[in-house]
Amino acid sequence: MPNPTAAMIVIGDEILSGRTRDANMHYLAGQLTERGVDLKEVRVISDDAAMITETVRSISDSYDHVFTSGGIGPTHDDITADCVAAAFDQHIDVRDDARDLLAAHYESTGRELNEARLRMARIPDDATLIENPVSVAPGFTIKNVHVMAGVPSVFKAMVASVLPNITGGAPLLSATLRINRGEGDLAGPLGVLAEKFAELSIGSYPFQDNGIYGANVVARGTDQTRIDAFMRELKDMFA
Amino acid sequence: MPNPTAAMIVIGDEILSGRTRDANMHYLAGQLTERGVDLKEVRVISDDAAMITETVRSISDSYDHVFTSGGIGPTHDDITADCVAAAFDQHIDVRDDARDLLAAHYESTGRELNEARLRMARIPDDATLIENPVSVAPGFTIKNVHVMAGVPSVFKAMVASVLPNITGGAPLLSATLRINRGEGDLAGPLGVLAEKFAELSIGSYPFQDNGIYGANVVARGTDQTRIDAFMRELKDMFA
Repeated sequence: MPNPTAAMIVIGDEILSGRTRDANMHYLAGQLTERGVDLKEVRVISDDAAMITETVRSISDSYDHVFTSGGIGPTHDDITADCVAAAFDQHIDVRDDARDLLAAHYESTGRELNEARLRMARIPDDATLIENPVSVAPGFTIKNVHVMAGVPSVFKAMVASVLPNITGGAPLLSATLRINRGEGDLAGPLGVLAEKFAELSIGSYPFQDNGIYGANVVARGTDQTRIDAFMRELKDMFA
Repeated sequence: MPNPTAAMIVIGDEILSGRTRDANMHYLAGQLTERGVDLKEVRVISDDAAMITETVRSISDSYDHVFTSGGIGPTHDDITADCVAAAFDQHIDVRDDARDLLAAHYESTGRELNEARLRMARIPDDATLIENPVSVAPGFTIKNVHVMAGVPSVFKAMVASVLPNITGGAPLLSATLRINRGEGDLAGPLGVLAEKFAELSIGSYPFQDNGIYGANVVARGTDQTRIDAFMRELKDMFA
């Protein structure tokens, strides 16, 4: 059975303007790979309501899981929850279970649960809350879409809350060989070898390191025996 | 006149598997912002021919410029050039001008211009070459799509070759104020202020720093006077 598939939507003008460097994509990619879920596509889009709604709607039909990052805080530019609700034609308002979480948290910290903070309790009717052990305000899952915060520490905590509920496939295994030779020299033989091991995905990632041209050759697949066999032949070829 | 728009397509399984952390998106985002080109969307997709072709075709209709990163080397998994050609129904083969560049380079370095390296001279008929001062093998521009290498040092060099040919708009200016107060406290007043300065884009980016909750408030726009006025009012509000 093929692995389940996933896509990610990163929401935030601050990334598209170059102000902030996104860290969540790389983190999620690693977590999904470990779990045997194939991340097929990532889209980074701006804080634009129509764009968010349309992207969620179209992408959620194409993949088993969709993860979003960003735009669920208390400020005026946090519009993700409402846009995801719109994508699924769902009613959204402050929900009692989410409000109770926030009320308890702010009471214990002596801060006010004001109107702005209450925005973080806006949850679509049919959604399930995602626990946030860092700053309490929850994410949510609706259908196959997991809506999470953009702050990296909160994002990581929410991923940890969601992943145990997802059935993964065979974990993707990989092995890497660093070859200190120009990609142009190894491309021919590597192509032949890749055809022989057609069930593996063979990638070549060139580097330059203090004037040395080389490439990291990576074999990926779910069968360790075949990966080992590939690596043996690769080493023999370029030893 | 509104600024020209752009999208980026990052091509590479190694990023989606979490093996490599992409650096080119953040770099390009900063460069375009400086130049007054609005980066509206980034898509990260795998080394899949149908996916690359379809993404290039659909996205090039929606934006003034499209930048791609990755998949133009000599190995079997470098399929971007052929996919971009297919997206525009263009003939592609080894082109004399690109071959001449490679031949001179490999002759001077005493390496062989073999069949694999010749793949890097595959350029669509109507494309213009993008200079690569780092490792010679060129990128190319066809219609509004700029096809560039994934290796960060080469990507940067190619961006520098392309950008002078692009007419930008008014550079996007910005100013940031760090406010050591929870987003929930500043959200209400900030929303009112954002409405007053509707021609600016006002973003709030929460952080946690050693247990302190705060937010960086960023004002973006093309009119420095208005940005300054916004920042004065913001400081007065939270001083």
